Amino acid sequence: MTLTMNLGPDSYDIVIARGCLQNAGELLKLNRKVLIVTDSGVPAQYAQTVAAQCKAPVIHTIPQGEDSKNLQVFEELLRDMLAHDFTRGDCVVAVGGGVCGDLAGFTAASYMRGVDFYNIPTTVLSQVDSSIGGKTAVDLAGIKNIVGAFYQPKRVLIDPDVLATLPLRQISNGLSEALKMSLTSDPELFAIFETGDIQENLDVIIQKSLAIKKHVVEQDEKEQGLRRILNFGHTIGHGVESVSGLQEDFLYHGECVALGMIPMCSDEVRTRLIPILKKLNLPTACDLDSQQIYEAMLHDKKASSGGITVVEVPQPGQFTLTKVAAETLLPRLALLKENAI
Amino acid sequence: MTLTMNLGPDSYDIVIARGCLQNAGELLKLNRKVLIVTDSGVPAQYAQTVAAQCKAPVIHTIPQGEDSKNLQVFEELLRDMLAHDFTRGDCVVAVGGGVCGDLAGFTAASYMRGVDFYNIPTTVLSQVDSSIGGKTAVDLAGIKNIVGAFYQPKRVLIDPDVLATLPLRQISNGLSEALKMSLTSDPELFAIFETGDIQENLDVIIQKSLAIKKHVVEQDEKEQGLRRILNFGHTIGHGVESVSGLQEDFLYHGECVALGMIPMCSDEVRTRLIPILKKLNLPTACDLDSQQIYEAMLHDKKASSGGITVVEVPQPGQFTLTKVAAETLLPRLALLKENAI
Repeated sequence: MTLTMNLGPDSYDIVIARGCLQNAGELLKLNRKVLIVTDSGVPAQYAQTVAAQCKAPVIHTIPQGEDSKNLQVFEELLRDMLAHDFTRGDCVVAVGGGVCGDLAGFTAASYMRGVDFYNIPTTVLSQVDSSIGGKTAVDLAGIKNIVGAFYQPKRVLIDPDVLATLPLRQISNGLSEALKMSLTSDPELFAIFETGDIQENLDVIIQKSLAIKKHVVEQDEKEQGLRRILNFGHTIGHGVESVSGLQEDFLYHGECVALGMIPMCSDEVRTRLIPILKKLNLPTACDLDSQQIYEAMLHDKKASSGGITVVEVPQPGQFTLTKVAAETLLPRLALLKENAI
Repeated sequence: MTLTMNLGPDSYDIVIARGCLQNAGELLKLNRKVLIVTDSGVPAQYAQTVAAQCKAPVIHTIPQGEDSKNLQVFEELLRDMLAHDFTRGDCVVAVGGGVCGDLAGFTAASYMRGVDFYNIPTTVLSQVDSSIGGKTAVDLAGIKNIVGAFYQPKRVLIDPDVLATLPLRQISNGLSEALKMSLTSDPELFAIFETGDIQENLDVIIQKSLAIKKHVVEQDEKEQGLRRILNFGHTIGHGVESVSGLQEDFLYHGECVALGMIPMCSDEVRTRLIPILKKLNLPTACDLDSQQIYEAMLHDKKASSGGITVVEVPQPGQFTLTKVAAETLLPRLALLKENAI
């Protein structure tokens, strides 16, 4: 199936089809110079499959992990394009997860003030969420996504077949964002999480999540309003992620979001959410220090002197946006303790 | 007077008024954190005048010259904003020439994916040309403007009073771009250059140049078509600039553009152009090696395998755009030799 992101002159198609990686050459304009950005954690055959369909491919493999999402690697990618004489008519393709997409997207946005960008996400997290919407970025001085651009891809290819090589923990990590979207926006999708077989419904979950995200981005491309609902679970989640990131066995992004959603639901929704998190092998509690989480939240870029806009879910498929003083969130962190619920 | 750049949601005003620097606080929204980017060549009182009108100013002074326009200084500016806890609701103001504007603009475009940007150009070159149109950039690996964004300012303040402190050579440097615009687009402005008193008509020259540029940018914000006429004189001009830049007594940008226009006019226009260049103290010939200029041109980002789009002026106020093989330009470089004309 194909979804169209309707953003005026920046509109584009999202092609969702098993095996579409093999048809990249037909679905994307690859008869030119193509910088393929992938990472060391992605099976090399995916980038090679794309490269085989390009006229003049350059594969650039970055080290796996968030640490690659910085201005130095950004510069390396730009220099690689310069070294290969890329012009404004050439393009960049990301083949990987969110780190690849964010970094490659910002590179494409900036080289000669913008060349065509295609995204081929290879993780559940990027397939259901980060690959569409046009947010590109790198991190700086320990702050995530602080430098970047709103820059829409020209097309996105979602091939669920590539998920077959993904570790189970990474699948759960991505499903957490899909669950997040169901909570604010789609009771039917929530029902699949609550009563359905996850593995059997994977394609449907991806499609429904992308449909929600598409709708939200169309209403609010540059995060002035409605798009904030995508941050459900992320205010506390980012705080958890910052503190957890200092540890050897750190939590993944989706795991932190799972925890971040718990205190932002009504009691009734929370009671239904916890069994789903368990079913997905996502955490339902953590032993991190509440005060540390709180302080990390305040450093987050979404905090401002005027308070924090929080998203809450009173019922599956409903949400509220409220500006609150940051300190009102501190007591809620007690809900993350073992046996709190 | 005020010109409005009509670019839909990205529209903005260009305020042209002697003394408007003193009223920056009324004309711009400065009751917030403001990063003021200036350079060591700009009289410090200009940035201080702006700072005095801000709620929370941070002045960042970069070393004067094109060498500052790089990714390292870009990162320093971003880190400065982070260190002062700038949020998405804060802003950046450039107070200086094209280097300041390009660098500050790209910083504003990238910090948190975009904060408000104001431009207060203090050179003729930036007042008549680079401060409007939304091209921001830094250089990389010796290639000018290869990394950047199309990012429009929220408002531009043009105060001709600040030009009083400018060396005469810098004034001529900027007038070369105004002369360029008159040649492609405005016979009346060309007549002022040909028969008028330049100093007396400076305000009119600035206004008319901005009106031309505004019209061109409105038709073609992202340089897909008409905007190419702004490159009149620049294809050869950039080649001259690259070669000249290796010398101790290098030519300024506007001086290189002056030379670059000479081979791209009809014989009749060239005969009228040369006396104007002399009147403006701009060069009419150079002793650089033609072959070197030609090779530098080929490395320029506007060159591509499909040929080079050149702008030619058959009559003042008229232009043609033609795609030619690069080698057809080589013989024309003979016109830059002393006594060639």
